[in-house]
Amino acid sequence: MLFMVEMDVNIPLDADPELVAQRKADEKAYSQKLQAEGTWRHIWRKTGLYSNVSIFDVESNEALHDLIMALPLYPYMDMKVTPLNRHPSAIREDDT
Amino acid sequence: MLFMVEMDVNIPLDADPELVAQRKADEKAYSQKLQAEGTWRHIWRKTGLYSNVSIFDVESNEALHDLIMALPLYPYMDMKVTPLNRHPSAIREDDT
Amino acid sequence: MLFMVEMDVNIPLDADPELVAQRKADEKAYSQKLQAEGTWRHIWRKTGLYSNVSIFDVESNEALHDLIMALPLYPYMDMKVTPLNRHPSAIREDDT
Amino acid sequence: MLFMVEMDVNIPLDADPELVAQRKADEKAYSQKLQAEGTWRHIWRKTGLYSNVSIFDVESNEALHDLIMALPLYPYMDMKVTPLNRHPSAIREDDT
Amino acid sequence: MLFMVEMDVNIPLDADPELVAQRKADEKAYSQKLQAEGTWRHIWRKTGLYSNVSIFDVESNEALHDLIMALPLYPYMDMKVTPLNRHPSAIREDDT
Amino acid sequence: MLFMVEMDVNIPLDADPELVAQRKADEKAYSQKLQAEGTWRHIWRKTGLYSNVSIFDVESNEALHDLIMALPLYPYMDMKVTPLNRHPSAIREDDT
Amino acid sequence: MLFMVEMDVNIPLDADPELVAQRKADEKAYSQKLQAEGTWRHIWRKTGLYSNVSIFDVESNEALHDLIMALPLYPYMDMKVTPLNRHPSAIREDDT
Amino acid sequence: MLFMVEMDVNIPLDADPELVAQRKADEKAYSQKLQAEGTWRHIWRKTGLYSNVSIFDVESNEALHDLIMALPLYPYMDMKVTPLNRHPSAIREDDT
Amino acid sequence: MLFMVEMDVNIPLDADPELVAQRKADEKAYSQKLQAEGTWRHIWRKTGLYSNVSIFDVESNEALHDLIMALPLYPYMDMKVTPLNRHPSAIREDDT
Amino acid sequence: MLFMVEMDVNIPLDADPELVAQRKADEKAYSQKLQAEGTWRHIWRKTGLYSNVSIFDVESNEALHDLIMALPLYPYMDMKVTPLNRHPSAIREDDT
Repeated sequence: MLFMVEMDVNIPLDADPELVAQRKADEKAYSQKLQAEGTWRHIWRKTGLYSNVSIFDVESNEALHDLIMALPLYPYMDMKVTPLNRHPSAIREDDT
Repeated sequence: MLFMVEMDVNIPLDADPELVAQRKADEKAYSQKLQAEGTWRHIWRKTGLYSNVSIFDVESNEALHDLIMALPLYPYMDMKVTPLNRHPSAIREDDT
Repeated sequence: MLFMVEMDVNIPLDADPELVAQRKADEKAYSQKLQAEGTWRHIWRKTGLYSNVSIFDVESNEALHDLIMALPLYPYMDMKVTPLNRHPSAIREDDT
Repeated sequence: MLFMVEMDVNIPLDADPELVAQRKADEKAYSQKLQAEGTWRHIWRKTGLYSNVSIFDVESNEALHDLIMALPLYPYMDMKVTPLNRHPSAIREDDT
Repeated sequence: MLFMVEMDVNIPLDADPELVAQRKADEKAYSQKLQAEGTWRHIWRKTGLYSNVSIFDVESNEALHDLIMALPLYPYMDMKVTPLNRHPSAIREDDT
Repeated sequence: MLFMVEMDVNIPLDADPELVAQRKADEKAYSQKLQAEGTWRHIWRKTGLYSNVSIFDVESNEALHDLIMALPLYPYMDMKVTPLNRHPSAIREDDT
Repeated sequence: MLFMVEMDVNIPLDADPELVAQRKADEKAYSQKLQAEGTWRHIWRKTGLYSNVSIFDVESNEALHDLIMALPLYPYMDMKVTPLNRHPSAIREDDT
Repeated sequence: MLFMVEMDVNIPLDADPELVAQRKADEKAYSQKLQAEGTWRHIWRKTGLYSNVSIFDVESNEALHDLIMALPLYPYMDMKVTPLNRHPSAIREDDT
Repeated sequence: MLFMVEMDVNIPLDADPELVAQRKADEKAYSQKLQAEGTWRHIWRKTGLYSNVSIFDVESNEALHDLIMALPLYPYMDMKVTPLNRHPSAIREDDT
Repeated sequence: MLFMVEMDVNIPLDADPELVAQRKADEKAYSQKLQAEGTWRHIWRKTGLYSNVSIFDVESNEALHDLIMALPLYPYMDMKVTPLNRHPSAIREDDT
């Protein structure tokens, strides 16, 4: 089941640089692991913004929720979650 | 080059049913042709809404503009266009 | 899997009364059938508004989408879809 | 009498962790007590967000107000309160 | 129990003048009856706008809903409903 | 002359508790004095929110402005000011 | 007493040209009469928009309301009303 | 050439009182100088708000920009700038 | 003096095609004449939208207003007007 | 390929003045270098605001993204990115 999740990252200017660097590294590792598993199907950067749009393939709302809440950068993020369906015009088999 | 385009479709209640049916058919054919060419890379339906989120892979803003303006259902659509980049955490080769 | 769906109904003043009456009757029958099946788990009216908030229990986004698109009053509706999870504080077994 | 209350939780990044942990524990106990009493009828998490949607069954606006103001996490919360009615299509007896 | 209801009236320019005049007369009679009963406790016009802010004293959400839905001008109205409580600083006995 | 004033109170989490307590006490005294004088005609709490809706009866915009600016809690408040008139349907003599 | 009133004019494309022309003429005459009386103290056009910002000097909210409701173009207008005071830095005697 | 400038002042609660007092005094002197020169043609307070609406008469956008940027309270201000024209119904010679 | 003007075009679906075609042709001729004069300095299309962003170089607000109001497509347009200045970092001589 | 980028600068009041001054100087140098290369084609100040509207000519979304992220003042900025096309009415050769 697919969900679009738009994540805007707002790191406070006075945040501890080391903590932030560590969280960014953890976020990258966490994201790439989920991408390798096929759960985090797509991740793109919005041009000019510290913001991404991602497509997740998960079993349930619960799975998506747990996955998002475990994002190391979550405390700095504003989220928008949009459930998706296969489009009647889609021809790609793997867009479901 | 990738763009996210969110299309909300609002067909007036008093629109000519035959005209609408024809435009819908043309839209599907047009979309599937572009999908087959790889230009319209993804199209998903937003659950519960007559709205889609699409990912286009085009050469330029001009190409994207012409492609969108040629959508048969364009007169009924509200558009939001967001340019995308490859994300530094992305591991898929084809998400560029 | 649970979703909150908020439906605002805007019936044009010049809509054909008979058509509207028929659609309202169909909507009620359709809703009560789904409620009886447990899919449409809750439906409440927002006080003072021609608008409802509903909780659906469905297998997937696709199922929810098809169900919503089949609403007889859909052409008159604005929708907002919010995926839900079980809350860590919830004590009711059936709120999942 | 039913009310929908949507609660967005925004805990400041520099909040005292111990104070927050204590308030979270108090919040859970407080919520579960009210759920057991039937006042806090439903509580669901909004997928991907530190936000919940709850349905309260109370005697009056005053009762609801006092109940909300006593939430241990109230200082970190943004609230939206929507009064609800029984829907004319509802078939469940207990959705009033 | 008190509710604030803000009603914006938008009568289509091409509405049947006689129908509108009749509905306005019915609205005035309906409102004054409820005011006399004490249900419609206050009604003020927002300066410069075809919009009012009213305070209702009702037994329940249901009562308020039925009352609002029966407004002759309802089809032309946008509503905003805000439940109210007695304020801890209020000194008037009758503001509850 | 009547004005509706909606006051949202946002007291910073790190505000000095004693200062806040003093200002709250001053606010209550100040409000009750003006209520006794008939200037602050109504004050209601918005259910579930640290926000009130008030009706003021003043001689002029200037009078209202000075009165609002003297609110002890003003520094923590967001204001919305709406001038009101007597409604043509109003039957209460004292709603002017 | 001063009020700022911002008026956006939206004349439907299919409005009767003669009716509109007559209303525009009546509006101009009405406005210039009130300007001559000093009630309509200032009227400026917002550059590039069919919208004006006006400053009225009136005795009361009621007076302002009646004046606005009598605008010939009122049916085509969206209004925003902002009560004003003399500014503590103002040096002009006549800006009260 | 006329511009409407709406200035909302938000002085942080923890700002240095002496610095703020000095800037307020400088702001008043600066404003009154420009008013005396006819550049700052009108300044009114929005009732109940720490916000003003001003009308400037300047030679160019550049002149207006420089003038605004030199406001001592600028760091605490949110601005909205609206270019104005003489209205075709205006009868005052000096409203250009 | 420079102004940015953003024009969103919304041509009603039931507009007379011949009238629209004529107005579009007139708009193009009108725009190109002003571009040739240097008044309409830049015009770009917003990708995917029937909307443009233009930069005008005019003598005054009045000049800009008259120019915009004379746009043949004006009845179908929503406008946003932003006055501009030369930027302190600008190196191009002709961006003033 | 052209993009409009609107940059609102919000420098915290308690930011280190020296750090800010250095970043501003770096920003100017960085901008002027890109302007000289023709990448940063236009930059204008929005009158009265610490905000600019810029037109970039870049090879791709990636190029634009990298360029924006390298802005020394980026941490203090809110961005809005709008892809542009050549307008069918444009007569300037260099507006592509």
